[in-house]
Amino acid sequence: MSVDRQKALELHRRARGKVKTYPTINIRNEDDLAIAYAQGSIYPALEIQEDHDRIYEYTGRGNRLAIISDGTAVLGMGNIGPHAALPVMEGKSLLFKNFGDISAIPMCIETHKTDEIIEFARHIAPSFGAIDIEDISSPATFDIVKALQSIEIPVFSDDQQGTAAVVLAALTNALTVVGKKTTEIKVVIQGAGAAGIAVADILLYVGVPNVIVLNSKGILGANNPFMNHIQQDLSKRTNPENLRGGLEEAIKGSDVYVGLSSRGTLPPSFIKTMNKSSIIFALSMPTPEITCEEAEAAGASIIAMGLTTAAYNAMPNLYIYPGLVRGLLDVRATGLNKNILIAAAQAVASEVDKRRMNERHLLPDLFSDETAPRVAEAVAQAAITEGLARKPVPPKKIYDDTWQRLFGGYLLRM
Amino acid sequence: MSVDRQKALELHRRARGKVKTYPTINIRNEDDLAIAYAQGSIYPALEIQEDHDRIYEYTGRGNRLAIISDGTAVLGMGNIGPHAALPVMEGKSLLFKNFGDISAIPMCIETHKTDEIIEFARHIAPSFGAIDIEDISSPATFDIVKALQSIEIPVFSDDQQGTAAVVLAALTNALTVVGKKTTEIKVVIQGAGAAGIAVADILLYVGVPNVIVLNSKGILGANNPFMNHIQQDLSKRTNPENLRGGLEEAIKGSDVYVGLSSRGTLPPSFIKTMNKSSIIFALSMPTPEITCEEAEAAGASIIAMGLTTAAYNAMPNLYIYPGLVRGLLDVRATGLNKNILIAAAQAVASEVDKRRMNERHLLPDLFSDETAPRVAEAVAQAAITEGLARKPVPPKKIYDDTWQRLFGGYLLRM
Repeated sequence: MSVDRQKALELHRRARGKVKTYPTINIRNEDDLAIAYAQGSIYPALEIQEDHDRIYEYTGRGNRLAIISDGTAVLGMGNIGPHAALPVMEGKSLLFKNFGDISAIPMCIETHKTDEIIEFARHIAPSFGAIDIEDISSPATFDIVKALQSIEIPVFSDDQQGTAAVVLAALTNALTVVGKKTTEIKVVIQGAGAAGIAVADILLYVGVPNVIVLNSKGILGANNPFMNHIQQDLSKRTNPENLRGGLEEAIKGSDVYVGLSSRGTLPPSFIKTMNKSSIIFALSMPTPEITCEEAEAAGASIIAMGLTTAAYNAMPNLYIYPGLVRGLLDVRATGLNKNILIAAAQAVASEVDKRRMNERHLLPDLFSDETAPRVAEAVAQAAITEGLARKPVPPKKIYDDTWQRLFGGYLLRM
Repeated sequence: MSVDRQKALELHRRARGKVKTYPTINIRNEDDLAIAYAQGSIYPALEIQEDHDRIYEYTGRGNRLAIISDGTAVLGMGNIGPHAALPVMEGKSLLFKNFGDISAIPMCIETHKTDEIIEFARHIAPSFGAIDIEDISSPATFDIVKALQSIEIPVFSDDQQGTAAVVLAALTNALTVVGKKTTEIKVVIQGAGAAGIAVADILLYVGVPNVIVLNSKGILGANNPFMNHIQQDLSKRTNPENLRGGLEEAIKGSDVYVGLSSRGTLPPSFIKTMNKSSIIFALSMPTPEITCEEAEAAGASIIAMGLTTAAYNAMPNLYIYPGLVRGLLDVRATGLNKNILIAAAQAVASEVDKRRMNERHLLPDLFSDETAPRVAEAVAQAAITEGLARKPVPPKKIYDDTWQRLFGGYLLRM
């Protein structure tokens, strides 16, 4: 890891919370107090009681995201529990704010039971415009997100939907660079956790004909006795050639490798058995399945990593989630689906100038001010088209940057 | 009500959320990203995994308060539900920030079941330094606060503990003004909901010998068949003369009247039956049990109101809760008890210059910058004395006013 431990601890100690709240209303005297709390709050309360949708007009619900984690699958550390997960969820809240101007609230919760997490999310729904189910182990995370599709706001898991969309974005441009088509490729996904399964799902949805997924025991298929219920379901839609065995058997003759295992590795020799113009996405965090140098030496055409510190082609979910949630909140969405994710992926992919796009330049600048607003716009439009918008008017592309103008110079830095 | 409806709606529409989040760390490039999120979050996560108390050192838990409401007893509106309660809880978050520099998160939840609210609060505990159970109907609110006394952070209800402490503060000074003693008075409390019962409890605790509490059916006591389990319990410790009947019977010969009923009234003629130098606290919101003018004309010596718009002696809980929570958070408290509340009440009472104290000047200026820090200091010290502090060092009286310096001029105003 390239980050210095002492520096990281020092920064966290100085920040004591990577997001805080600020007030939006000035309280100088009794009149201010009366209008902002009792009795002024009574009028919007009565308006909302009459029509729940007015909550978006008079409160911050429409800009507030709940990040819920039980701490069971945190950044490659596994089950570290809710307390230890808090700095990670605060980090995510920080990025939602920095890149999407979203008030994201970290909620690390003291239960590992699927039904209790579902109930928890149902209970908090009235106060939030969307919910991100984060770093919860698989298959629980699938069951949770699925069970919550019926509530009145979008519930997603960045590990699932965010990863699926960023892989689709990078793959779209990678295929353009190497001159292959989505409908003609074979993709191998190492890792059948939340991310691996979600990526398989979206690739099948966009028409990839041959998707092979592996868990730690081998290829998902009729011959693999070590599958949870989500993997069993997926095994019926993948591995059309009924391959048996492990990564070595799966990867031979494939066009794309997607690494989403927590401890998997990709031996360089395996890359040599792939089709020419092979594409390698080594997305494990914090340690990728293979290094850039090894993959290059083994002949891979395109290499990308999940790490933002990668020398080139870093493809973190950060490309997706601030704009995705921004767009959903802007139209007060009631849910999200694969077509919305595809719109987000296309928006990211199309942000790269095609004249400059090449093997080492698949994605836009991560710090571009353009990407998140473009993704938001595409997502908002898609939500309207899909009938999932309470407010069927595409938002203006102007976000409140008061905090940025004011706090910019005062924020901590190392 | 003196607040204009259109103005209140307009302010809420412009604010769209009375608190928002801001980031504390600058994210300009890949290095910033790496240290603040993956992989820099991993180091504090591992530290916290080893020792949960380090969560206070590396995260914002120690400055974050959860405001939980099911919307069943909101500002005199009764059961308006969690959606309609949101502007009110956001208002409370705003005041916690403005007066106490606390990141308070409004959580209006979709359940009215006592056991589910208890479970909800247990689940979110790891992310918060304290919990405020707010505007939940009685007796559920008692059962909830009581059940949560065993968790690792302070759980209180401003309706109960906040009201109890502010009544004690105002009463302390009122008794000084009229020259009576706590241990010699008779107090009548109209209203046996959350606030009324908590006030009775603390008055008994500080040695008031004769406390009489009334619910809507009359005096709590052996002859009142309309009592919930909390009221039954309280009836054994109050009404030592075994009075029967209603307010008229109760108030005769009393020294202090505390109105905490939602729809009760205090007829002026009843005041004339009280002992001389009578003290009237008409605390119902938004409509007090009697007006200042009526109470004065009836001969009351001291009159105070819950409304901040009162002509004099406004005694809102706002005197207590920002400093109370500030102090509890500063020492990373594990709980709170009556001695801590008494310390808070004494701090408020002693903020009034004794040379200036009189019938119309019982409490300090509500907008004094001194009150909340003094309350915080007293509370922190009391928590240490009571063995309820994780960090047994009194805090420095310096709070982060970055937001105030920066946002001061940019906040909304009407």
